[in-house]
Amino acid sequence: MAAPLSRRDIDFLLFEWLDVAALTTRERFTEHSRETFDDVLDLSADIATKMFATHNKKGDQNEPYIGDDGKVVLIDEVQAALDEFTKSGLMAGSFDESVGGLQLPNVIGKAALAWFQAANPSSSTYPFLTIGNANLLIEYGTPEQIDTWVRPMVEGRFYGTMCLSEPQAGSSLADITTKAVPADDGSYRVSGTKMWISAGEHELSENIVHLVLAKTPGGPPGVKGISLLIVPKYLADGTRNDVALVGLNHKMGNRGTTNTLLNFGDGTHSPADEKGAVGYLVGEEHHGLMYMFHMMNEARIGVGFLATAIGYAGYLASLEYAKVRTQGRPLDNKDPSSPAVPIIDHADVRRMLLAQKSYVEGALALTLYCAQLVDDEQTTTGADRDRTHLLLEVLTPIAKSWPSQWCLEANSLAIQVLGGYGYTKEFDVEQYYRDNRLNPIHEGAHGIHGLDLLGRKVVMQDGAGLKLLAETITATIDRAESAGADAAVYAADLRRAVDRLTEVTVALWSVGDPATTLANSTVYLEATGHVVLAWIWLEQLLAVGDNTGDFYDGKRAAAQYFFRYELPKTGPQFDLLASLDRTTLDLEPAWF
Amino acid sequence: MAAPLSRRDIDFLLFEWLDVAALTTRERFTEHSRETFDDVLDLSADIATKMFATHNKKGDQNEPYIGDDGKVVLIDEVQAALDEFTKSGLMAGSFDESVGGLQLPNVIGKAALAWFQAANPSSSTYPFLTIGNANLLIEYGTPEQIDTWVRPMVEGRFYGTMCLSEPQAGSSLADITTKAVPADDGSYRVSGTKMWISAGEHELSENIVHLVLAKTPGGPPGVKGISLLIVPKYLADGTRNDVALVGLNHKMGNRGTTNTLLNFGDGTHSPADEKGAVGYLVGEEHHGLMYMFHMMNEARIGVGFLATAIGYAGYLASLEYAKVRTQGRPLDNKDPSSPAVPIIDHADVRRMLLAQKSYVEGALALTLYCAQLVDDEQTTTGADRDRTHLLLEVLTPIAKSWPSQWCLEANSLAIQVLGGYGYTKEFDVEQYYRDNRLNPIHEGAHGIHGLDLLGRKVVMQDGAGLKLLAETITATIDRAESAGADAAVYAADLRRAVDRLTEVTVALWSVGDPATTLANSTVYLEATGHVVLAWIWLEQLLAVGDNTGDFYDGKRAAAQYFFRYELPKTGPQFDLLASLDRTTLDLEPAWF
Repeated sequence: MAAPLSRRDIDFLLFEWLDVAALTTRERFTEHSRETFDDVLDLSADIATKMFATHNKKGDQNEPYIGDDGKVVLIDEVQAALDEFTKSGLMAGSFDESVGGLQLPNVIGKAALAWFQAANPSSSTYPFLTIGNANLLIEYGTPEQIDTWVRPMVEGRFYGTMCLSEPQAGSSLADITTKAVPADDGSYRVSGTKMWISAGEHELSENIVHLVLAKTPGGPPGVKGISLLIVPKYLADGTRNDVALVGLNHKMGNRGTTNTLLNFGDGTHSPADEKGAVGYLVGEEHHGLMYMFHMMNEARIGVGFLATAIGYAGYLASLEYAKVRTQGRPLDNKDPSSPAVPIIDHADVRRMLLAQKSYVEGALALTLYCAQLVDDEQTTTGADRDRTHLLLEVLTPIAKSWPSQWCLEANSLAIQVLGGYGYTKEFDVEQYYRDNRLNPIHEGAHGIHGLDLLGRKVVMQDGAGLKLLAETITATIDRAESAGADAAVYAADLRRAVDRLTEVTVALWSVGDPATTLANSTVYLEATGHVVLAWIWLEQLLAVGDNTGDFYDGKRAAAQYFFRYELPKTGPQFDLLASLDRTTLDLEPAWF
Repeated sequence: MAAPLSRRDIDFLLFEWLDVAALTTRERFTEHSRETFDDVLDLSADIATKMFATHNKKGDQNEPYIGDDGKVVLIDEVQAALDEFTKSGLMAGSFDESVGGLQLPNVIGKAALAWFQAANPSSSTYPFLTIGNANLLIEYGTPEQIDTWVRPMVEGRFYGTMCLSEPQAGSSLADITTKAVPADDGSYRVSGTKMWISAGEHELSENIVHLVLAKTPGGPPGVKGISLLIVPKYLADGTRNDVALVGLNHKMGNRGTTNTLLNFGDGTHSPADEKGAVGYLVGEEHHGLMYMFHMMNEARIGVGFLATAIGYAGYLASLEYAKVRTQGRPLDNKDPSSPAVPIIDHADVRRMLLAQKSYVEGALALTLYCAQLVDDEQTTTGADRDRTHLLLEVLTPIAKSWPSQWCLEANSLAIQVLGGYGYTKEFDVEQYYRDNRLNPIHEGAHGIHGLDLLGRKVVMQDGAGLKLLAETITATIDRAESAGADAAVYAADLRRAVDRLTEVTVALWSVGDPATTLANSTVYLEATGHVVLAWIWLEQLLAVGDNTGDFYDGKRAAAQYFFRYELPKTGPQFDLLASLDRTTLDLEPAWF
């Protein structure tokens, strides 16, 4: 089996491009060195390959079920793999030493986790959610909450979830109906139904810490009335809390992750005199959605990583196949008795491989860049921090949606490279394709990120969001213009695209009618995503510099592919946006 | 459950656009009338809905397996549905009366079959292949072969297959190694292994008629040495022929169709003194690939229909959902206590529905157009026939590949409309997506059609193929220019696109190096496909004319969508092609 990620590429991105080793000069990371980073990455690759990749297909073919005793049954390999993950210290990776963590840079922690996401998307979901959950509580929980719930998560004894959606409310969180009523002891009683809860029930950990969005009595309607509560499966004293598994969802992919419908406070697990599951308020009432965004933003970039990792695994699998599978002959060879050539020799197969390479390596670069911004945010102050925070805000919808769209496309191309074989369960690429189809759906459906980007992020602080993005990209363009022939050509293309993006954004917001402005926000998201990725490829090309060798030539070829085949796609998208098109508005449902 | 196809749309395409009723004035179809056509379509919709759609999910979840007795086991519903199909006379639909058929127009037969493809892609494959097989033999078989093998297929007693691929040779048929050796009695002995044979083994019919590509001794190498043989599962006297099921392929989708690895002549079913399965030569030796193209061309348009039908079913399912599922509020409604609206009210959901509508209705129009060209070819002579044949040749790669690409995209959008629900097995759209992913792979992988279109079809007869396509489209443009404001704007857009297509084709073929010319033939295929579909939408718009009402307004909206969102995508594609880009050629495999 091909490795699911390229360590060479990760080294290039982290150390030749992002200069992550330089983080060790910052006070937070002085205990670390390039060597510890290497060790973490080596360890991750090793465990991911040996313990996670090995049960990826088995997990897909044996989805979790509810046993006779009402408990969720998973294949044994999941527990063994996660135990090894925890034992190795990887769960503790990026957390503060103050809560028992190793205080690794976030970017190293995310690069390490990417190995597990690539090797086994389903099994990686359990630590992924646990880390995000703990990070939220570290930011907004009380010291007691941190001691009680976070430390065991850092130790890998408790796992976490995020409980937002309900059967009637997914994208529209304003409409959640789960209730949290204050109890005499300062805790709350939570009742309601939550849908699509990944890792919502299992026996993999001693406890499950649910972070639940709910409404308290008398609060304002809509999202302003949402509070956030810790609702553990077991209370601190070991009592079973009233969180009941109603059912498991059966999905097209990502089948190894339990995905649950949960009832809170329906009486299944509570004494008769209680009314609701016991919950503990995080921070203040009615600020819950703001707190949850801490986890959601991390999870969104994390989904970008997940989509990237699955795309990457598919790329490498199809590359390996294309190098060994022989079929057909070059177009200029008319002799049918000459031997067949490896299919990588055919132009269209190369196109499909280059496309995948440009998508997955570009997406990995973007997500690692965002992961490092989190480190920058955490280790800077004042205006520097504000700028970093703003850039991260603007890039988050793209870091989530672009890999979800294009690394899924990469997985489709991986199937195509394998042909009929790729469509069968004998190979892995069909599972990657099914697994990755989840990513444009969860953590904010694709279209939601368009509304977020165009409706909120680029106009934040009087348009400072877009201005900062454009300045950041332009700084790269300026450097590229004097960096050799190809880079200068690409720089000119990218400058035109950034100018266009700015013009179009201004035009859209000059309309005075939000419905028209936002009518094609998904198209805006996709166009902006391609501009950002072209920037990321130009950045990589600058990091390649004059280096020689196959690896660097490959980066040059992928950058060339992206600038010639992909960036031009934004032209018609910007044209459509500039026309203030109302096709989707000026019609009646009955016309369908 | 939503109907899987729209009868209203089919009526519009057949009778308001293509004027299929006028076929009844042609001698071949004088027995028929608009009424018989309506009856056939009514019957198809009825049986497809009641007998085929009802086991689509069950067939997916219970894939065929090999029982203890070595026989293939399918769910019972498949046999019952196919019996009903045959009993109703639909198998006999388009065949000549001389072989026991009803002599319906091909376009009516294909529209009828589309109902079954939409209701149950897997179960529809059995008659689909049988009809194509029989049509080949009617064209090239001897009267005796027709009596022995075709008549029972028309009666639905025998089913057919096409056996082209081998484990080492899929796209590259030149490399097949299956052998056919003449026997003393004039028959042949066939030995070799065939891969990916759909409907290759089952107990649904009394017999299975395999059409097998093989090489005879002493023939030239490559495709010029290929012959075509009839190799039945049972000989005419009832003896079991030596065709052995080696295994069933387990696939991501299309799971209800058996897909087999078959051994011919390995001794499993033959007496010890025989060497090979008994086969009967079709036509002459070494002309096998040419004969097989008769079935392949029909099958390619048939795959276009299949992809279209699955896309259509997904569109209608997501449309039904979008009309009843409530969530969120209009952008200009800031009151979170107001009731949630049906999601069809959101611009991005409408965009996803309009995109699907433009893809699936456009694809259905194109495939029906091609199906009618087959009728035209059969009922005309001389120069008219030659023109029709040439146009069909040029359109076939597009009729196969465009629906396979864009109706799959439609299925992805259908999932997206349903959100998390769409990703689960509670709904049908995830299966449609998996089923449709097959279509860019079989009957010539996607890239093969790019080579066929650019490398062969548009340059046939000194470029007459492209010239005819351009003339045909231009005739529509000329009519549209005087047909009202929108149509005139679209006509101008389309004229530019057709001019660009012609220029780019000439530029590509002026290079003098086929490798460069064909380096981006898949991009050429996709750009030409979008131009053709824009033409098909302009044709539909002209058929809409001044008619009023929701249905016609829907057609106008979908045409508008296609011209504003889709056709412009061809601009960067033609730019890339015009640049004679060599990105995929000028690289080394080691760079990946």
